[in-house]
Formats: sequence, C-alpha cells, structure tokens
Amino acid sequence: MAQASAALRARVRRPSYLSKLATADDLIPLFPHGSYIGWSGFTGVGYPKKIPTALADHVEANNLQGKLKYNLFVGASSGAETENRWAKLDMIERRAPHQVGKEIAKGINEGRINFFDKHLSMFPVDLMYGYYTKHKENGKLDVAIVEATAITEDGGIICGASVGASPEIIQMAEKIIIEVNTATPSFEGLHDITMTDLPPRRKPYLIMSPEDRIGTPHIPIDPERVVAIVESDYPDQTQPNAPADDSSRAIAGHLIEFLKHEVNHGRLPPNLLPIQSGIGNIANAVIGGLSGGHANFKNLKVWTEVLQDSFLDLFDSGNLDFATATSIRFSPDGFHRFYEKWEEYAPKLLLRSQQVSNNPEIIRRLGVIGMNTPVEVDIYAHANSTCVYGSRMLNGLGGSADFLRSSKYSIMHTPSARPSKTDPTGVSCIVPMCTHVDHTEHDLDVIVTEQGLADVRGMSPKERAREIIKQCSHPDYRPILQDYFETAERICLKRGWGHEPHLLWNAFDMHKNLFENGTMKIDKWSPSP
Amino acid sequence: MAQASAALRARVRRPSYLSKLATADDLIPLFPHGSYIGWSGFTGVGYPKKIPTALADHVEANNLQGKLKYNLFVGASSGAETENRWAKLDMIERRAPHQVGKEIAKGINEGRINFFDKHLSMFPVDLMYGYYTKHKENGKLDVAIVEATAITEDGGIICGASVGASPEIIQMAEKIIIEVNTATPSFEGLHDITMTDLPPRRKPYLIMSPEDRIGTPHIPIDPERVVAIVESDYPDQTQPNAPADDSSRAIAGHLIEFLKHEVNHGRLPPNLLPIQSGIGNIANAVIGGLSGGHANFKNLKVWTEVLQDSFLDLFDSGNLDFATATSIRFSPDGFHRFYEKWEEYAPKLLLRSQQVSNNPEIIRRLGVIGMNTPVEVDIYAHANSTCVYGSRMLNGLGGSADFLRSSKYSIMHTPSARPSKTDPTGVSCIVPMCTHVDHTEHDLDVIVTEQGLADVRGMSPKERAREIIKQCSHPDYRPILQDYFETAERICLKRGWGHEPHLLWNAFDMHKNLFENGTMKIDKWSPSP
Repeated sequence: MAQASAALRARVRRPSYLSKLATADDLIPLFPHGSYIGWSGFTGVGYPKKIPTALADHVEANNLQGKLKYNLFVGASSGAETENRWAKLDMIERRAPHQVGKEIAKGINEGRINFFDKHLSMFPVDLMYGYYTKHKENGKLDVAIVEATAITEDGGIICGASVGASPEIIQMAEKIIIEVNTATPSFEGLHDITMTDLPPRRKPYLIMSPEDRIGTPHIPIDPERVVAIVESDYPDQTQPNAPADDSSRAIAGHLIEFLKHEVNHGRLPPNLLPIQSGIGNIANAVIGGLSGGHANFKNLKVWTEVLQDSFLDLFDSGNLDFATATSIRFSPDGFHRFYEKWEEYAPKLLLRSQQVSNNPEIIRRLGVIGMNTPVEVDIYAHANSTCVYGSRMLNGLGGSADFLRSSKYSIMHTPSARPSKTDPTGVSCIVPMCTHVDHTEHDLDVIVTEQGLADVRGMSPKERAREIIKQCSHPDYRPILQDYFETAERICLKRGWGHEPHLLWNAFDMHKNLFENGTMKIDKWSPSP
Repeated sequence: MAQASAALRARVRRPSYLSKLATADDLIPLFPHGSYIGWSGFTGVGYPKKIPTALADHVEANNLQGKLKYNLFVGASSGAETENRWAKLDMIERRAPHQVGKEIAKGINEGRINFFDKHLSMFPVDLMYGYYTKHKENGKLDVAIVEATAITEDGGIICGASVGASPEIIQMAEKIIIEVNTATPSFEGLHDITMTDLPPRRKPYLIMSPEDRIGTPHIPIDPERVVAIVESDYPDQTQPNAPADDSSRAIAGHLIEFLKHEVNHGRLPPNLLPIQSGIGNIANAVIGGLSGGHANFKNLKVWTEVLQDSFLDLFDSGNLDFATATSIRFSPDGFHRFYEKWEEYAPKLLLRSQQVSNNPEIIRRLGVIGMNTPVEVDIYAHANSTCVYGSRMLNGLGGSADFLRSSKYSIMHTPSARPSKTDPTGVSCIVPMCTHVDHTEHDLDVIVTEQGLADVRGMSPKERAREIIKQCSHPDYRPILQDYFETAERICLKRGWGHEPHLLWNAFDMHKNLFENGTMKIDKWSPSP
C-alpha cells in the first residue's frame, strides 16, 4: 500500500482521505475499456498526471493499443504527455470539447477519434444535462480524475492553476479520484467556485464586476464518492509563450488607436471595460500594448478565459487592477515569477469555473472587450476558428464564440496573410467566403490585421466587404478580393440577390488554388454563368 | 390645430401632452432627408401608423421618391402599409435589424436599401452603445415615433401588442412623438418594462421564472422630450396564420415523441421547461400538438419572442399556465378572441422588451426549449436562416440565434424538401453545406423534418451527418446526400482532413443544379481531384 509523504500529509486536511491513498498502478482496474472518464484541466494546466500516465504505460506494456479506449471529457486541453500520448496509443474513442496536440489532431483527422467541439461555457452544462452520457444506463461519468493542490477539512478540493469543468465533472461522476500535486504550491484562496444547478432551479450569477466573489474557495464534494487519492509529483508541463513580432505589434497598434478613439467619443470609459484576450502572439502584443507607449490605460480590469505571461507584465506596470479567468497558463518562467511575488499578485487574481468565466450572462452584463484570432475571416465578417479547408480540425472552437457573441466589442485580429510552403504570403486570411463558419456576420464588430482596422458596426454586408478589403487585406490579395466582390455584386444585383453578393460556385477558388498550386493568388475569377 | 377626441382624452392621463396634440401632416417638417428615425413595433404589431403614412403621402404627392430617405430602426418588422410602402417609394436609406415585405426585400436585394440583420436581443443594446449613430455629432436618433395605447399620469407610455425596442429607441431619441391608438383597447397591465443601463453599471435580470415581474407597467419617459402626440385610429394590420398541414403535423408528432422521451429519461420535468416557438405553420402545429392527443403535457410555461393564435388554443386547453413574449401577433380573429376573454388571458400573459425576452442570460438560466424553422440545414448541423443562395436576404436573423444559442434544447424543424417551380421536391432543405451560416454545428441539438428526428447531442460531425441524412432527408435526396458524404469522407480521410469531410469545390453543386435546372437532384458527384 502507498505511504503518505510528509508533503502529502501537509496538503490533505481530511484525515479519512489518507486511508484511500493509492498508487496510480493500483487503480488501473477502475478503467475498463469503454469507460466514460472526466479529467480536470484547462489549457494544459491543472490536469491529472499520474493515472493517465500509468494507463498509457499499461497499454504500451501489454500491447493494448486500440483495445483499451475511453470516452474522455476535459474542460479544454490537457497536458501533451497525457492526452497526446493517449491519442498516439489509440486510447481515445471520443473526446470533447477541445484539444491541443499533434497526435490527437492526427487521430481526429484520420477518423480514429470521435471528437466534437463545443462552446466551453456550454460543455459543462450539457454534461450536467446528461447529453454526453445519454447512452449509459445511470447517465453518469464512470470516473473523474481531478488534480488538487490541497484538500480541506470537509474533503473539498483546492484546485491548481485551472478550474475548468472540474465542478461539473465531479458532480456527474460516480467515482472520484484525486491527484494531490505536491510539486506545486497550494493555490488556496485563488478560486471562486460555484456548482451547477439545473433549470428550473437555476439562479442568476450575481457578478457585477470582475472581482466579485459568489462561491466557495474549494469544490465541495461528497467524500463517500472519493475512491482514492494519489500523490502527484511534477508540475504542469507548459511551454514558453510565442513572442510578439512586427505584425502582431502593428495589429496591437491599430487596436490601441481604436480603443482610444472609442474613449474619446464617450463609448468607453477611460479605464475601458473588462478585457478578454485569447492565446498567442497577437494577444500578447495587445496586452503588452495596453500599458506601454502612448496608450497607458490605467485601472484596467480583465475578464477572460486564460491568463498568459503578458498579464504579469500588465500587473507589474501598475495599470491592471484585477484579473479573473478559469486558468493561468504561464510559461515555466511565468510560473516562477508568479510564485516569487505570490503575495503581490494573489489579491488581484481569481479563478472561476469555465461555465462562469465564459458565461454569456456575465460577459454581456460587464460589456467585455473580446479579442480572438481566427483561421480566416471573410469579406462579410464571418470567421472560421476551427476547420482548415472546412474539414481539418485544428484545436476546436474553445471560448471564442462564448466571448465574441456576447462582448460589447467583438474583435477578430489576424495577420492579413500567412506563408504557404512555397509562397511567403500564399494564404490570405481574408477570403471571399469562410470554408467553415464559427462566428457569423451578426457577431463581429471589428476586424484588424497588420494592414489596418475595419470597424464594421452598423454596416450592411456590401459596406462591410468594401471596408474589410480596403483596410485589412494584404496588398497581394486586395485586387483579387476587390475583383471577387465587384463581379459578385454585378451578377447578384442583376439577379435580385444582391444583399450579400457571392459567386457561389466559385467562392472557394482561392482555397482550391492553394491546394493545387500552393498559393491563394489566382489570376482571375471565371464565374460560371 | 388638432382637437382631442373624447377617446383620446380618456387614454391620455397627462394633461400637458394634450397641448402637444398635432396632426401627422403638421409634423412632416420634423423629418428632413437623412434623419435617423426609430419606430416602435415588432412583428407587425404596435407600430406607428399615422406619421409614416403621412410622410409616404407627402413623398408621393411631391415626387420626392429617392430624395427624402431615412435611416430607419425598428425592433423587428413593422406594418406592410408603412415600411413596405416606404420601400416602394425609395424612402429607406438604411434599415435594421429585421423586415417583412415584398417591396422592402426587393429594395434590399436590388441594392437600394442598406440593410443589416442583427440578433434581436443585441440590436437595442448596440443602439444604446451608439454603434448605429456613431457618424452623427450628438450620437442620437433624431426622432422616435412610438405607438401607445395609453399615457400615464407621469407621461409614461403604455405600449400595445408589442414592446420590442421601444424602451431603448426612446432612451436614444432627441425628440419623441407618441401616436396614441384609440382604435385598440388599452393594454395597461400587460407589460413589464425595464430600461437599459450601460456597463459598468449593468445589473442582473432577476427573472427566475416566466411570470416574474422586474419592471414597471409603462415606459418611463422625460416629458420634455415629447414634442407631439397624434391620435391614431386604426388597429394593427395583421394577417391570418398559416394553417398546419400534414408535413407540419408529422414534424410536431416527432417532436412531441422526443419531448416525452426526454421526460421519461429524467432530462426534463413532466411539465417540460419554458417553451420558445417561432412563427409559421410548423410552430403552430407543434404548439397545437403539446396539448392535444396523447401528449397532454400539463402546467406548461412559455418564454418566447412572439405569441401566435395557437397559444390561445393552448390557454383554452387549460394546459398553459403562463406565457411571456415581446409581442402578441394574433390574426384579426385571434385579437378578437383575445379581447373577448381579456380577463381570462391577461393574468397569464406578460410582454417585455425584446432585449429581455430574447436575452441569453435568461434563456440559458430558464433552460428554454427553443424551436425554429430555417432556410436549410446541412449534414453537419449548421443552419441558414437568412440568405437564399448565400446572397438573397429573406427577412433577417430575427431572434433565432438568441434562442438557439442559449436554449437547453436547440431544435430546428423544417420540411425535408420544398417545391421548386418545376419539381414538387426540387429543393432539399438538407444540403451538404449551407450557403450561409447563421447557426453553427456547436449550437444545434436536434434536427427534425416530417421524415424523422435526428438527436445529434454529443455526436462527432461524421456521426451527425449519418444521422441527419438517415432520419431527416427526403427519400429523393437520401442517396445523393449519402453519396456526397461517403465520397467526401473517403477523400478527406486520405488527406488527413477527415474531421468534417467536405468536397469543398463541389459543396454547392446541388444549389447550382437548382439554379440551372430547377431541381437539386443531381446525377452524381464529380469531385475535382
């Protein structure tokens, strides 16, 4: 039987749990083929490490690839060494609602993994509704594996660097296993946890400002459902952040100008409204730009899904008063900085469940400024966040639509073009028609590339097309897109279909040319009659 | 000067307003070319009648077509004899967020009217943000024309059969004109009015059940901004409802079965959850089916956008406890029934602003069962609600996405096929790829046609495609769609793009065949390499 280390005893304030201490290997029999499993974790932090690894070792050692497969539900992405390895070992039958990793994407796009992506705010609720377990007799998840950084006297779970869907996964699980991580500090005090009620008993989220607390510091739990605890001994495996480049700095510059313009015209207060920012180098440049140079916005607040390192810089600038999210996905260096100055950062920080951080109710109430990066945007302001060529899944929708649908400002930022294998600007991110639509023309207010910013609020589709092509498209593609629009306009107006003119049978010709010739640069549009 | 009739005096309890009594003709100078105008009204009820007609007469009499044009904002559609006539007289420069009428659709699709459609819950908020008046120096609407059925002692407005966007249009208007309609009864007591605060001062909507009241019975108003009142002397011009047919009854039958199944599996309480239903014959058949036959659900509640005649039947069956909406668009017969039994219906009915009736905060909290009819649905469960051939605008998005994005059950119902000019089943409503996407695969739970019901919750895209084709497609199209899917799957899996397989360069071939040959029935798919 496993022995409790001193470190573990210091973290587990519920003595009865120590009698349930196990090693990961002990627990393998709890995971028969076909199990429905929920993990904690979100954007690669706060995920369970020991049991997933033990199960992968077990499959590898016993050649059980494709024979021990699971239905796996995690709030968003988990660590590469766990779910990505599971994918490589063909251990995933079904996965939702988001993922990151080469092997798992390969499994999805080669048809071995049944994956569906879902709004991250909605996934935990649909899970609670029993939508994902409706083929099971008891309608439950078989096992939840949840990482904790401490256990309260009541047996409640103190999460780590993410909350994600853990509250709902725990509510829905028949058995609960807790991995207590003793390699990272306890995050106690950093969380505001709410559990999910079902209609008709659901109440408002009484949050009027990012710092409002409405829950408990831990996930309350039924101790009888805890079947085991396991000590976990290594921290979240995060990667360094993508650095800002000239293009992302130019995008940030246009955005900061726009926000200042909105303040000057009285549509935003001088300290803006709560900011949401996605992941990646553009997001980093934008967050960096808010405090630097001539922007110098003061008393900012953040209501977002994930915090990256750039928010630490914003705290350090003295201009960020408060930030809340469902996950802090710092780089290894960022976590080091964070732990060093814990006393300084912690009072200004709060982690909530993804159902709360991404909830349209609160995002709309607060008037969030929402910013995300798509795969492509079309001339009428639809956006694709998920499927290349309309078919190949990248990571999933994530929280992009949770925010862009309900924000006061719905902003998409993207480079105007990306390199293909043979052409440095072979892929235009502004296209005639998106090959997959995750965000509609009814949702987006602003499109911005390094070329410029298109403010399309209150515009009809044809006005939008002119503005987006003019302000946002790469000069290599401007004449091509202009020609598409003018030809479509001429033909469709003649037919009496001119609200949102398309050359429907040719709308993906740029994509076809990319596929066949390695670039979206086409000579001319040859519209079918 | 206009004289106040006895009927008018009985309705206007604020004496000072009577000194502002005018005829519609007196007010024409208040509407110079280019004015920004807001009207009350929603789905053709509660709209102003006298001044729009006087302005149209003025344009016609003085040959001012195309010379007196307005930016017109109404919560949804207005009466045909007003906005449709304005469109015919080329009096509309810009229009949002919804419209109904042949002439106005023509003006939009021939490029004379700059129209944009917007989520009906979001339109009034974006208006308040100043997004639609940002080119104006004072950022305001010039004039609001609002129909009232009575005026309170404080000068507040008692709306008629709709609330719509009137609260926000009034908040944003420099001048307010009230048309007091003495030809319909006063609707006093039937409304629950909330005004719109802007962030960071916005508060939760404390509605936990359809019958909860959180506002005032009238729209509070600054009497100094009321520049005139006009007596209006004819009722809303509504049309008879579309009757249920065999196809819509079959759809309703599948849906009722499904709801019973959900009750039996404990995912719905026996009295269901609040119901939202769109407009049209399918909606009528569904609402009719809830109380009739072997369904017989009791103690139902309704949280919806518009109430049609079928809800009166549901009240009469004794099975509907309460209904709330932003508009009651009864037929002339329906209004007659409603006025006859006012005392019986009124206590079970409440009208709210469209920002509240369609608010995602409340729809999600209540766990609404949302049902709408699209133009087309694709095999992966995206839906088009607005643009035929991706280009030609019908009426606009309306509240479909407000409900389908936030409902507990997001249901699209449609006939599997519709007639073209030459083929009784020339148009398949199930297509390989929607030509315009208003609702994404991340939003829809259930697709239902007269053929059957596809419950796609928790399914991956390929599972969804198989289920939708099998359950919902018309037999004439099933082999065609099956062949599309299988060919796409084979090719895309080979390329490693197999998450959501498409033949991207051929995805609209069925639409092309419809355009060229009058039917979507194609012989075979000839995918480009």
